[in-house]
Amino acid sequence: MPKLLILSSEIDEYTKLIQPATLPDLEIVTDPAECEIVFGEPRLIRDVLPNLSNAKWVQSMFAGVEALMDPSFRNDYILTNARGVFGELMTEYVFGYMLAHEKKIFERKEAQQIKKYDRFESGMLRGKTIGLLGVGSIGSHLAGMAKHFGMSVYGFTRSSETSESVDTYYHGDQILKFAGGLDYLVCVLPRTKGTNQIVDANLLNALPSHAVLLNVGRGNAVDESALEQALKKGKIAGAILDVTAKEPLPEDHPFWTTPNLLLTFHTSAISYPEDITKLFIANYLLYIEGKPLRYQVEFERGY
Amino acid sequence: MPKLLILSSEIDEYTKLIQPATLPDLEIVTDPAECEIVFGEPRLIRDVLPNLSNAKWVQSMFAGVEALMDPSFRNDYILTNARGVFGELMTEYVFGYMLAHEKKIFERKEAQQIKKYDRFESGMLRGKTIGLLGVGSIGSHLAGMAKHFGMSVYGFTRSSETSESVDTYYHGDQILKFAGGLDYLVCVLPRTKGTNQIVDANLLNALPSHAVLLNVGRGNAVDESALEQALKKGKIAGAILDVTAKEPLPEDHPFWTTPNLLLTFHTSAISYPEDITKLFIANYLLYIEGKPLRYQVEFERGY
Repeated sequence: MPKLLILSSEIDEYTKLIQPATLPDLEIVTDPAECEIVFGEPRLIRDVLPNLSNAKWVQSMFAGVEALMDPSFRNDYILTNARGVFGELMTEYVFGYMLAHEKKIFERKEAQQIKKYDRFESGMLRGKTIGLLGVGSIGSHLAGMAKHFGMSVYGFTRSSETSESVDTYYHGDQILKFAGGLDYLVCVLPRTKGTNQIVDANLLNALPSHAVLLNVGRGNAVDESALEQALKKGKIAGAILDVTAKEPLPEDHPFWTTPNLLLTFHTSAISYPEDITKLFIANYLLYIEGKPLRYQVEFERGY
Repeated sequence: MPKLLILSSEIDEYTKLIQPATLPDLEIVTDPAECEIVFGEPRLIRDVLPNLSNAKWVQSMFAGVEALMDPSFRNDYILTNARGVFGELMTEYVFGYMLAHEKKIFERKEAQQIKKYDRFESGMLRGKTIGLLGVGSIGSHLAGMAKHFGMSVYGFTRSSETSESVDTYYHGDQILKFAGGLDYLVCVLPRTKGTNQIVDANLLNALPSHAVLLNVGRGNAVDESALEQALKKGKIAGAILDVTAKEPLPEDHPFWTTPNLLLTFHTSAISYPEDITKLFIANYLLYIEGKPLRYQVEFERGY
């Protein structure tokens, strides 16, 4: 009878969601040393990692698992993360902000506030080009929606070319060429060594001056002072950052007041317990049958 | 050799677009009395209507042709309007504002302005219900996109049920039942006698209190004082109005400062000369072959 440890700030909700599913032979326990399976938030898991002497499988409730990636930590267990459930949420966020930019919805509200019936023209997404920095399950979802809005889709990846909705792929040293043709650059990268400051001064310089950057991946991907300078000098038209290198953003950080920069405080894809539990249950059913689990994290690669 | 009169504030652009197409035997003229075909903006056409003694076909550059519908005006010509080209534009607008509401993008900007790292939760369109008041070519386009975002789609029409993306149709006296289940009510109706103040106090009362109204059709469809009261009393959560009964909105109109009401000054679907000219050319080719034209307006019906 596999013993499950749940580690979450919403433990009551997760417990409630798992019990009605009456998973074959599953017992919920509270002692880390006792459990065979862990279902939890990466940072809470990290805190008990040394005590998880019997854990064979750990299911992260989040997509980002960098809290468990320190090379000094044990990695003798199967780690699976939350994937597939964020595509729709991230897509709503990214298209919401791109449309807000095209439709000038902040500017229109300002016109209303000064009672000015100002019919300045809107732009449109149709015909524009979105560039995806990272094309995994979220990137693929974004690509599909972009095609539905009549956009061209470029994708930059290490080597994979899995999404059929990407019109043109770029790899390796083609990153500046990739950036040169974009209206929107959307960063969906996980935090790994390889993604550190990939959005640097060179990349920002390569973007057209009307381009807008959106970062829904991890804050480490952006050279923050380079971005601040690019926005101050008008080298790009705007940035929408759901993530930053330090979270919460320090009070004295220049991003609070950088021109044309919007912060959304890591809210673009909150893990809904209903979605995450479905994912856990699907994996649990594979687990008890001894089949390979979905969304396994490679410790070497970091995602 | 058919003689064409172009009536537009952008006459140079339209003339430039039509000439390269080298339409068979078409001659552009400037004298209303001389022309057989008119391609123009409805109000400019109205002003010369008595002089159009030889006009057989009038192609409106806009969707709304109410300027030509006065019963005292002549209607002994074929009138076609602009259709099919606004679906994508209106869809970008409607989804932009619905996503802005779900993602709380104004509230997040306010949080940034007071330097508050506030992670209040976003909503999502997935699983919500959009109700279309009017399902013509624009409504169908909206319905298709709504399905792509995982929404349920209700449609209210006089009798037609042409869009496959509408899950449930309502007609006639079912309008309050239609409204009762909505998260978003999107009005896409033309201005006719039958659409006057269709969004009245009863309809607004029937909406759930979290519902948001969007009007991208014509201002006559909304009882404006009923809407003002509904918003002031919190009977609905918000309204986004691209159109109003009087345009430009009078300076002393309460809508400038009504709570949770956004004005966008009739910008949701500007007619792009490239799009409208394509439509004119397609109809012209039918015209010279003596075939029925597309998008004919019925004077009786008003659209």
